[in-house]
Amino acid sequence: MPSLPDTERLLLGPGPSPVSPRVQRALSAPSLSHLDPDMMALLDEMRGRLDRVFRAAPGAFSFAVSGTGSAGLECAVSNLVRPGVHVAAVVAGYFGDRLAQVCERWGARVSRIEVPWGRAADPEQFARALRAEGADLVTLVHAETSTGVLHPVGDLAAVAREHGARIIVDAVTSLGAHPVDAAAWGADAVYSCSQKGLGAPSGLAPVTFSAEALDRGAGSQSFYFDIRLLRAYWTERKYHHTISAPLVYALAEALAAVEEEGLEARWARHRRHHSALASGLGAMGLELLPPEGERLWTLNAVCVPDGIDEAAVRRFLLTQFNIEIGAGLGPLAGRIWRVGLMGHGSSAQSVLVFLSALERALRDQGYPVTPGAGTAAAGDALATVK
Amino acid sequence: MPSLPDTERLLLGPGPSPVSPRVQRALSAPSLSHLDPDMMALLDEMRGRLDRVFRAAPGAFSFAVSGTGSAGLECAVSNLVRPGVHVAAVVAGYFGDRLAQVCERWGARVSRIEVPWGRAADPEQFARALRAEGADLVTLVHAETSTGVLHPVGDLAAVAREHGARIIVDAVTSLGAHPVDAAAWGADAVYSCSQKGLGAPSGLAPVTFSAEALDRGAGSQSFYFDIRLLRAYWTERKYHHTISAPLVYALAEALAAVEEEGLEARWARHRRHHSALASGLGAMGLELLPPEGERLWTLNAVCVPDGIDEAAVRRFLLTQFNIEIGAGLGPLAGRIWRVGLMGHGSSAQSVLVFLSALERALRDQGYPVTPGAGTAAAGDALATVK
Repeated sequence: MPSLPDTERLLLGPGPSPVSPRVQRALSAPSLSHLDPDMMALLDEMRGRLDRVFRAAPGAFSFAVSGTGSAGLECAVSNLVRPGVHVAAVVAGYFGDRLAQVCERWGARVSRIEVPWGRAADPEQFARALRAEGADLVTLVHAETSTGVLHPVGDLAAVAREHGARIIVDAVTSLGAHPVDAAAWGADAVYSCSQKGLGAPSGLAPVTFSAEALDRGAGSQSFYFDIRLLRAYWTERKYHHTISAPLVYALAEALAAVEEEGLEARWARHRRHHSALASGLGAMGLELLPPEGERLWTLNAVCVPDGIDEAAVRRFLLTQFNIEIGAGLGPLAGRIWRVGLMGHGSSAQSVLVFLSALERALRDQGYPVTPGAGTAAAGDALATVK
Repeated sequence: MPSLPDTERLLLGPGPSPVSPRVQRALSAPSLSHLDPDMMALLDEMRGRLDRVFRAAPGAFSFAVSGTGSAGLECAVSNLVRPGVHVAAVVAGYFGDRLAQVCERWGARVSRIEVPWGRAADPEQFARALRAEGADLVTLVHAETSTGVLHPVGDLAAVAREHGARIIVDAVTSLGAHPVDAAAWGADAVYSCSQKGLGAPSGLAPVTFSAEALDRGAGSQSFYFDIRLLRAYWTERKYHHTISAPLVYALAEALAAVEEEGLEARWARHRRHHSALASGLGAMGLELLPPEGERLWTLNAVCVPDGIDEAAVRRFLLTQFNIEIGAGLGPLAGRIWRVGLMGHGSSAQSVLVFLSALERALRDQGYPVTPGAGTAAAGDALATVK
């Protein structure tokens, strides 16, 4: 019979990221019901914290859907997409494709603007597409978890605004780790998850809707995701569903930790550890899929060298070192590893232990690497990159 | 600034119910990702445990939706209801009405079979309605949380089967506390929640779909609730969403506790404490809304005596005794209190402390009650009811 886990996996995959002891402890605070005055005070506080981490404009409604990031996605789409709406979807990976698919499920006519997997979307190409076809709504992925690419959402959103299109942004792998700016983007909805940059367990999906989106009558056919009912619960205490107390506690504590660290310091920490990892990988002769300047700090897409059995490396890391990393998705299956340094997991320790373990796994397959080259380079980078 | 709760509310409302120390501890087991082999082993085990607690027929697919009971509801409805389908909805309270409304949201033509709030549905009336109007699908609530009534789902489902109608059953306030029998009912889908009879925190919604429902092509327009994708994740490890590790641990532990206690013993425990509470309330001159024989063991709808300020009583219990009970919903607002004895909260201690505190709250408003009458009667009942 399976039992609960008793050893800590080092979670360096595409998420969930490691949960800090502080957030872990918050899970066990005593239960409160979904309508308890003390719970509502926690939710009020959380709305404010989410407004700030999303950098939402005044009048926005920021809250957390009772589900995972995919629930956040469906909440955003089902409240903004109406049958027949024309959506221009930037598809540069698995999650851009998922977003386009969900728009189709909700009745949109979707034009896909395809971007090579591993490259950032080009605002010029996007502008040409919108000039040619127009769009009622555009879908953008800020941090494409399948390719490790950061997309220029600021520029893309500016193009969308010029065409009067509404905007949905997926910030699942960026919130709390890369600058997210819902207000500057003019996004109607931005959604994320709890278990990556924010450092909480999964199960709540932060979402923000702009005042304009709400004023224009955002609402969903889905009962569970209807923003009108969710807002009435979060702001007017009208019963809708029984929010999970331990998940609220964990996310509240994680958001408190984000604010104590400070957004700028947190972004810098994620950038620093990504840079150190990239230096170490480079010294081991390994390459990242995206070119420099298009790379996420949270999720590193590492190209699998020729002749290496990528699944065997992942298995080796898991069984020998208790380290989880992710596999490639779709056309990148077998071609990349996805190495996450997010939230509490974005640390110097993570970088060094991963590089050491990877070196061992690669040597096991006869890959030529100078012992210690990766960790030495990463250590140098950590000492210099602020 | 609000902080995490530091005292334990005694949760005697309509749910969430109190979480046992054992389940509470499970929350803090180390995180596993949604595709970790150890996580998949836990989910495999959970499917079996849920098959048994639902008493599902062979070939059924039992699992947990990553959301609350309302997510379970929408998962059941959105996978089985197609636009234009004729649904006969037994509406005997707030949750029967919610189920009917969600069917309407998903495009059903809904005939409501109205039952007075506080009474059990009559299979004869139901049979007459189906003879007159027919139905493609019927929706039944086993335990109506808004009225404290147990509905004869076995008899109602038999009527539905005679008419060849598909069947959805809401077992939110019965699973793990009252006999649920998905196989005998011939239900296409039964959904529940984690935070009532099962004794886990909220956030996962157990659902079972019958083999027939799956074979006939159940599937949802919703991405998050699509049973085809959810089943592919739970059974074939195909990524769909990032299930919440702490919630899985807590529900797994709660289900283990259910099986160790045994379903029959657990039902008997819920019946015994309900009986003791009813005896105590009777001795205090208080009445339950449903007649004997139609009462839930999990949720007691207590009529507010004339002249008593019901909200003041709830406030008094919360602030003076740290005890939460629920208010009435809809037409029963102000007319009943809802007192839950569910899961870990169905205990002799809960009964005695609640009756003592209620006595004090009522005396505070001048209600005539012999001191100790309620707890004495409850104690007698506890000593005799097996």
